[in-house]
Amino acid sequence: MQSLQRLSCEAEALLSELEARGMRIVTAESCTGGLLASCLTDIEGRSHCFERGFIPYSNAAKHDLLGVPRALLAECGAVSKPVATAMAQGAFDRSQASLALAITGFAGPGCEGEEEGLVHLAAYSGDALLCSELHLGRAGREPIRRAAAAAVLRLGRALLTGDARPMPAASGVNGHPIIDAR
Amino acid sequence: MQSLQRLSCEAEALLSELEARGMRIVTAESCTGGLLASCLTDIEGRSHCFERGFIPYSNAAKHDLLGVPRALLAECGAVSKPVATAMAQGAFDRSQASLALAITGFAGPGCEGEEEGLVHLAAYSGDALLCSELHLGRAGREPIRRAAAAAVLRLGRALLTGDARPMPAASGVNGHPIIDAR
Repeated sequence: MQSLQRLSCEAEALLSELEARGMRIVTAESCTGGLLASCLTDIEGRSHCFERGFIPYSNAAKHDLLGVPRALLAECGAVSKPVATAMAQGAFDRSQASLALAITGFAGPGCEGEEEGLVHLAAYSGDALLCSELHLGRAGREPIRRAAAAAVLRLGRALLTGDARPMPAASGVNGHPIIDAR
Repeated sequence: MQSLQRLSCEAEALLSELEARGMRIVTAESCTGGLLASCLTDIEGRSHCFERGFIPYSNAAKHDLLGVPRALLAECGAVSKPVATAMAQGAFDRSQASLALAITGFAGPGCEGEEEGLVHLAAYSGDALLCSELHLGRAGREPIRRAAAAAVLRLGRALLTGDARPMPAASGVNGHPIIDAR
């Protein structure tokens, strides 16, 4: 299980990269419900790197707060790569931050038709987008949420440091280059 | 120190009250940075009671996301009763929830002119408002954040169950009745 301490280390590592670049971060969380932002804002002396956060838990909130198109939610489902991407882009556009991280997933216990542990992540910086898909299985609500938060922190770091491999242009969404993280 | 487990019990108690009334909640957090929402959304089987959350960490975010007047922020400071109240009312008006909880405070370490451990809380349900002011001292960042989250959960429960004493009408803000929690 991902410990809170390990999660805190991941948060600190990303905040260091942000600070070194004079950047701030915005978060958009569905299944993690504030856990990601909470980890980022719990680090002493780095508060200035966190600009704002959104917790668009309901589908209505995803549309209202981040402009995720209702048609996209209906067609792809809230837990999908296009919705994670739209959440990251929506959060970026509605903040003064220069890096946006987004998480949407099924933390469980799963309902019919939901894959417990399926999580889609996105990191967006205005000119680059990283996406990642996790299949964490029936690990339980807390472990899934922690693993998702840790993974998106690593994704954000990969975007900043360029530690990611390019994907075919055909994977692009809304004309943005897509790079999937290792 | 407020343990995470104790905080989780407070969250569960409020969610039970909400569920019994068919209500949903919205959160607006500054110094707790998502901790409150994270606790509320970590409870299995109660996700449907959480509607959305805002983390207006910067002053710009308090204005942009929740409509907190810039003049109020300049005059009263971000950590004040009027701003906590405006955050709760702004979150309520910008959600489909029927209870809003707001937290603004100095989690520390304190800068000059900031009282480390000073936290203002507000709970708003459209027709009633509860406010509370905490002086938690130099307890450290994590303990202050946990205590603030626990206190606003209790404030929300006090508002729902009527377990609070009325304050003079002169304390009212924006024409709303003010009731300060015990």
